[in-house]
Amino acid sequence: MNFSSDTAAPAHPLILEAMVAAAKGPASSYGGDPWTKAARDALCETFETDLDIWLVSSGTAANALGLSILCPPHGAIACHEEAHIERDERGAPEFFTGGGRLSLLPGAHARIDVAALKRRLAANDPDFVHETPLHVLSLSNLTESGAAYRPFEIKERAGLAHEAGLAVHLDGARLANALVSTGATPAEMTWRAGVNVLSFGATKNGGAGCEAIILFGAARQRLQELKVRAKRAGHMPPKMRFLGAQMSAYLKDGLWLELARRANTSAASLASALTKAGIELAHPVDGNEVFATLPLGAAARLSAAGAAFHPWPDGSHRFVCSWATAPSEIAAFAAHLAG
Amino acid sequence: MNFSSDTAAPAHPLILEAMVAAAKGPASSYGGDPWTKAARDALCETFETDLDIWLVSSGTAANALGLSILCPPHGAIACHEEAHIERDERGAPEFFTGGGRLSLLPGAHARIDVAALKRRLAANDPDFVHETPLHVLSLSNLTESGAAYRPFEIKERAGLAHEAGLAVHLDGARLANALVSTGATPAEMTWRAGVNVLSFGATKNGGAGCEAIILFGAARQRLQELKVRAKRAGHMPPKMRFLGAQMSAYLKDGLWLELARRANTSAASLASALTKAGIELAHPVDGNEVFATLPLGAAARLSAAGAAFHPWPDGSHRFVCSWATAPSEIAAFAAHLAG
Amino acid sequence: MNFSSDTAAPAHPLILEAMVAAAKGPASSYGGDPWTKAARDALCETFETDLDIWLVSSGTAANALGLSILCPPHGAIACHEEAHIERDERGAPEFFTGGGRLSLLPGAHARIDVAALKRRLAANDPDFVHETPLHVLSLSNLTESGAAYRPFEIKERAGLAHEAGLAVHLDGARLANALVSTGATPAEMTWRAGVNVLSFGATKNGGAGCEAIILFGAARQRLQELKVRAKRAGHMPPKMRFLGAQMSAYLKDGLWLELARRANTSAASLASALTKAGIELAHPVDGNEVFATLPLGAAARLSAAGAAFHPWPDGSHRFVCSWATAPSEIAAFAAHLAG
Amino acid sequence: MNFSSDTAAPAHPLILEAMVAAAKGPASSYGGDPWTKAARDALCETFETDLDIWLVSSGTAANALGLSILCPPHGAIACHEEAHIERDERGAPEFFTGGGRLSLLPGAHARIDVAALKRRLAANDPDFVHETPLHVLSLSNLTESGAAYRPFEIKERAGLAHEAGLAVHLDGARLANALVSTGATPAEMTWRAGVNVLSFGATKNGGAGCEAIILFGAARQRLQELKVRAKRAGHMPPKMRFLGAQMSAYLKDGLWLELARRANTSAASLASALTKAGIELAHPVDGNEVFATLPLGAAARLSAAGAAFHPWPDGSHRFVCSWATAPSEIAAFAAHLAG
Repeated sequence: MNFSSDTAAPAHPLILEAMVAAAKGPASSYGGDPWTKAARDALCETFETDLDIWLVSSGTAANALGLSILCPPHGAIACHEEAHIERDERGAPEFFTGGGRLSLLPGAHARIDVAALKRRLAANDPDFVHETPLHVLSLSNLTESGAAYRPFEIKERAGLAHEAGLAVHLDGARLANALVSTGATPAEMTWRAGVNVLSFGATKNGGAGCEAIILFGAARQRLQELKVRAKRAGHMPPKMRFLGAQMSAYLKDGLWLELARRANTSAASLASALTKAGIELAHPVDGNEVFATLPLGAAARLSAAGAAFHPWPDGSHRFVCSWATAPSEIAAFAAHLAG
Repeated sequence: MNFSSDTAAPAHPLILEAMVAAAKGPASSYGGDPWTKAARDALCETFETDLDIWLVSSGTAANALGLSILCPPHGAIACHEEAHIERDERGAPEFFTGGGRLSLLPGAHARIDVAALKRRLAANDPDFVHETPLHVLSLSNLTESGAAYRPFEIKERAGLAHEAGLAVHLDGARLANALVSTGATPAEMTWRAGVNVLSFGATKNGGAGCEAIILFGAARQRLQELKVRAKRAGHMPPKMRFLGAQMSAYLKDGLWLELARRANTSAASLASALTKAGIELAHPVDGNEVFATLPLGAAARLSAAGAAFHPWPDGSHRFVCSWATAPSEIAAFAAHLAG
Repeated sequence: MNFSSDTAAPAHPLILEAMVAAAKGPASSYGGDPWTKAARDALCETFETDLDIWLVSSGTAANALGLSILCPPHGAIACHEEAHIERDERGAPEFFTGGGRLSLLPGAHARIDVAALKRRLAANDPDFVHETPLHVLSLSNLTESGAAYRPFEIKERAGLAHEAGLAVHLDGARLANALVSTGATPAEMTWRAGVNVLSFGATKNGGAGCEAIILFGAARQRLQELKVRAKRAGHMPPKMRFLGAQMSAYLKDGLWLELARRANTSAASLASALTKAGIELAHPVDGNEVFATLPLGAAARLSAAGAAFHPWPDGSHRFVCSWATAPSEIAAFAAHLAG
Repeated sequence: MNFSSDTAAPAHPLILEAMVAAAKGPASSYGGDPWTKAARDALCETFETDLDIWLVSSGTAANALGLSILCPPHGAIACHEEAHIERDERGAPEFFTGGGRLSLLPGAHARIDVAALKRRLAANDPDFVHETPLHVLSLSNLTESGAAYRPFEIKERAGLAHEAGLAVHLDGARLANALVSTGATPAEMTWRAGVNVLSFGATKNGGAGCEAIILFGAARQRLQELKVRAKRAGHMPPKMRFLGAQMSAYLKDGLWLELARRANTSAASLASALTKAGIELAHPVDGNEVFATLPLGAAARLSAAGAAFHPWPDGSHRFVCSWATAPSEIAAFAAHLAG
């Protein structure tokens, strides 16, 4: 009953197999290898467009590097006040941008409230030297509360941002889960909705350690700068082939969506077990995360029964399922709740 | 005949096998897993002392993070003018320290000249506000010219540095090769010689992507800061177990020294083939790298014959062997030279 | 009727006179001159304690340098969501700290709400690597809404901060105005209330361009680092004597309090004229600033009549008086309102 | 006999008088005042071209801000190995650029050697991700050894830099002295010779604390960014009028050239006294600085006689004259030498 995090799961066998298979003979270092090229090709196909990529080994690196080519040291990034880049990355955006700032916005279920975004954009004056103006809007899908944006919701917020001269970044650490639950295509949820730079996660959904920074459209002109910044940050590992191999295997034959579907299904079962036990959910379950408002004493009892999960700053408790969550874990959890 | 770099080699099967074996069940994220603990234990044993570590996926990350806990934004790092941190890391030390500076020293075969070091230290005045004073001496072993420092040479330089109030960092991306050729123990070459922070490489010698930042003695008090800086730089990948597994397998049963021995032996054969052909070597061959002063036209002929290698800024050409270099490659190269 | 800002005023004749008088013969550069020493002595006397100082030419420099010795690159500074360091300094704290972050707190009249501060401090976990923990609490007195904290209010907030391991910074760009209106002594309002580092303003109250960063108690150990950071930021002007002379003249014979008293009196008259005209004030008038909730059309009419003032982000309009505000300006303004 | 530095001199009475005169009535803050506008107009006339400016209170601020709009965090600045930005600004260029690097070049009398510059430029490869490429060439006139570049010498180096895609910065902390000694016009020595950004000093030559960052030609497009960076660094003092007034007075009726002429004349006399006493000069005396190779014991004897001067890192001793150096000081010094 390990619902602590999807990062607690191991890597999927097919992804490890691909890494082993990549250990064949010499290959160019620093991303010039065939596996990295194949990963890019697979991403182009998946997203139905020509795009550029850089592969890194953590979501923090993906977000911070992606943001650093969009926001100058003297600019700001609008994001939700509970966004991962605000809450859980120890100031990585500030570090990579050289002192850029996050500007926080409210919104239920960690979705950015449109009215609040409009007010913030209306107050933004890039010509006023004294204030730090917005350069980027960063969205997250799944949000930090496990909710999904649908494509039109991304589009609305991205549209407002673009009108105000901002670029749009999407933290897609759990994008697969959002796509499965909304039924949207990768293209619909990203560049067709106005996303310029995407952090596309694989680690939480079966990878050993692989995230792609994806540049769409005009953002592709920043590829060279992205490489420079990656190198400078130690995110140009010599044997990039082992990242390329992960990403290719992740996308091959729809593995990524299949794994996300499994995780989402587990989460739905877990949520159902909770509600059946009369426990209220704090947020919609649009992916692989369940946030429950536990009654007094329940957290201690569940922990004592062997369940691993985390208290959340909003007062709820978070239970995360992954591709590796066993039906037996859910069943045991449900049985405990029912008992 | 791929002598382009030891980073062009694949990962060693035993290391990949360990990664696959690590994909078992849930484990704590961010370094709290048993594989990372085992890696630390193995490093303690290898270095015959209690130490602290952080694992990263690139040598640039290891060097820059290690230096960032030793040098403030307003300090300087003394290093050889051909050091990797100066030549090949795109300003990573400057980035991670927040604007620290490299202060360059000369020396044959990329070993720091002792007299030059003494002069530089004598001119150093930490109390003079206008100048940027030295806080760290960074050595490399192997050096960028493939030469090895012996322990007493490290000790002499480190001693001078300590007397002047500096900390000592060692870039050991190819430490295994230096240990094999000098016969020194890991302890003799590092903390016993005065090294405070070590970048201990595995990637070039069989890893898929793994380097350890090792803190010795009083430097261990900076472990928490090191973790914070790693997190902030995207170098705290969630599934750290895949780094821990690599390092453990690397050290197990002396694999690392065996692989370095192979690479060194190949380099010695390659060097011998060159000298037999009347070609001069530019630097001592103390590890797995050979620098040759090729006569006019020779580089083009060798390339045409299928050999991969790189021209070097000092006018020579660099040939690198790895654990994966096949005897047949050396033989073919020698035959071509002899022919 | 120029109520645009107290920075629109010229410098006071006595302060300029002191600058002219300081232009006598050679003097040590970079702060080693007798005028800078005299300024420190005068500040020790004014604050009734031994202290260390650095003089700079802008409030932004004073705040950002002062904060940079209290907050590491991976730390955060708690401040009011309308604080000058958040609203009007273009990311200077982020720049000087090397990527530190502001953490915003609410509170009426730009005073930090104690309950909100307690909640924020309770949630602060310096040991949790993923989040950016607080290192400093920054208060402003006068606040950005022209309100004053009384000493016990500073003390309460500073006490909470200290208990949580934070240092306390006070932005005193308009400290003189707050002291005059509260009747507190400089010591009571600062170090006796728990302030560690003070930005002590003279520019807005008669200076040509002079602010002191004042280090109290244990913070004095950071003086050398402060000098280093000042030098590195271009805030160690060679002819420091012209800053020292300003500060000495500012403090001599209570000039600073006399000028603040004048400005406060003008503001009180202006506020009275507004309320008599039936216009509501948005914030308490505790110093030289008046914030008025102007009825529709009033701003345009007042501008047309020749009054200079600024709309404020909270919907009110700000009118600032200075030592140089003439009674005739207030009278003309009142007459216009009454007419 | 104070030859310690030209920064030890007071400000010139006409410049102080202008500051006092600027203290008249309210004026726009942050550079929107008539005095700052007049300063720009005067600089346009002096340099015979349309240009943009920002005024700061220290040479370090002028250099570092000027360089920060020309060099990205991942770029390098070529300068002489004895340049002020390398030796005496505590890493300000690194701080303001966000981690850019200085790349050092040799050359007699602190003039950059043309052959060395050519070699460095030839080795520069902006497309190679691993190295830090040059973005700027920074020259100094006077050099740190008191020598002057003539316009054709600036032009030659600037031309090479431009061909290689670099911008050109000139540190003109003592430009007036170089202009007087070479007879060149301001235009000939700067933009007509290829300078894009100039640090134009007044402080050492009569100012109280005033330097202009001057943008020529296409560099003028960076004015807004320069302002933003100045604000963020605390170099947008509210009462900018007191900087504007200094610069206007400095240029008025050729005061600046007259003061430099006085200082140069004093230096020539001082040099002559030294050579007459059989003491060798280490560098050409092209301005107001004299570097002498003192025989054993001479430094102590001169100090004992009341002369103030500094030992220099190259083994010589530096004597600096200023506009305020009295003929009697030179005479006393000469008498002592002759005695």
